[in-house]
Amino acid sequence: MRILGIDGSGLVASVALVEDDNLIGEYTTGYKKTHSQTLLPMLDELGKMIDLDLYSIDAIAVAAGPGSFTGLRIASATAKGLGFTLGTPIVSVSTVDALAYNMWGNPGLICPIMDARRGQVYTGLYKFENDGAFTVVKDQCAVSFEEIAADINSRGEMVTFLGDGVPVFGDKIKSFLTVPYRLAPAHLNRQHASSVAALGLIYYLNGDCQPAADHRPEYLRLSQAERERMEKEKEGRA
Amino acid sequence: MRILGIDGSGLVASVALVEDDNLIGEYTTGYKKTHSQTLLPMLDELGKMIDLDLYSIDAIAVAAGPGSFTGLRIASATAKGLGFTLGTPIVSVSTVDALAYNMWGNPGLICPIMDARRGQVYTGLYKFENDGAFTVVKDQCAVSFEEIAADINSRGEMVTFLGDGVPVFGDKIKSFLTVPYRLAPAHLNRQHASSVAALGLIYYLNGDCQPAADHRPEYLRLSQAERERMEKEKEGRA
Repeated sequence: MRILGIDGSGLVASVALVEDDNLIGEYTTGYKKTHSQTLLPMLDELGKMIDLDLYSIDAIAVAAGPGSFTGLRIASATAKGLGFTLGTPIVSVSTVDALAYNMWGNPGLICPIMDARRGQVYTGLYKFENDGAFTVVKDQCAVSFEEIAADINSRGEMVTFLGDGVPVFGDKIKSFLTVPYRLAPAHLNRQHASSVAALGLIYYLNGDCQPAADHRPEYLRLSQAERERMEKEKEGRA
Repeated sequence: MRILGIDGSGLVASVALVEDDNLIGEYTTGYKKTHSQTLLPMLDELGKMIDLDLYSIDAIAVAAGPGSFTGLRIASATAKGLGFTLGTPIVSVSTVDALAYNMWGNPGLICPIMDARRGQVYTGLYKFENDGAFTVVKDQCAVSFEEIAADINSRGEMVTFLGDGVPVFGDKIKSFLTVPYRLAPAHLNRQHASSVAALGLIYYLNGDCQPAADHRPEYLRLSQAERERMEKEKEGRA
């Protein structure tokens, strides 16, 4: 079973091909270029390096949100375009779930935090069972850091943080957390398309996929433009 | 601090740039092409994608062995050539240690197994402390699978296996292990240059590096050619 993974949900752009238990290739950059400059060229390069026949792919797993609105649209548009052309189904993988899956096997709670601006984080809580099985403890959501910290404290378990929210909320982590915590290191603390693909493979084997035409990113919040329009309409009515 | 990571110790070819707590880029392929066709072109591509100034690198961390003799030579020659030209020091990272570092934070023992042919595996035993600190429990070595399995059983702790030896010794894992065990998933079970770079950064900060001219791969065993010559010389003397 061959799964192509794509992640453009944050600063990181990442593409990967997983075949059953093997990572055939992965290309990841966490750099200031926009994903429209990186994602497809990286897939093209990787494809050449591993002699990839796109028609050999069984499904395309994409980090479907939340995250950067533009990044999600670029990643989802790439997945939809490929899927539609190739006739390959899409597996929508929640961004926060895929981030947590980086930490496969770790004890205690896993808490990805992505900086969602406006005082919020995209986050969720996860656990790995002894056999490595992945469990969602709290679904991904957009909340204040204080809210997720209070939830974690109430559970009384060690937690591992990762994601681009860690440097942003580093001081708050220090001051709010009453349980032991640790921060994931550089090789695991940001998006990896191999995690999207590996988790996507599990979903796909459970029949959890959709035609490319039906796939949509999951923003979790309104975009700035939508918010501003709503506010203006509200003012107009007032 | 910027560390370039290079791994050519197995089927996987991988290059990565880590800057402090951030992975700036990583390119990994686990494909049948020889590393002489992949490693430098991948570094070249990655460098272009992240506008890499090679002179900005503080150290080059290379998976220094054990592993495929040809692969180790290609990776070490690449690191030495770059290091010598740029005046950048080399950090030698043991291949098995770097593989284990993929599993950062996992509980119990970590046991990478690489197929070393001739009935042996390259292996070692590792642990992560509660704060994530990395400990070598048993130094990397070339032994029979039975020997490392007996050692693991005697310790009575859960173990996580990874590496290209897992599919080769899968039946033996099943039949020999008397302690609970689990197998790392696709996104973590082979060499990643980001692990080499992240571990190399720790070594570098501890002053553990060398001039490029002094670096040598650590084969752990004699090469086939050396072995055959010694056997012939022995026969000649007999």
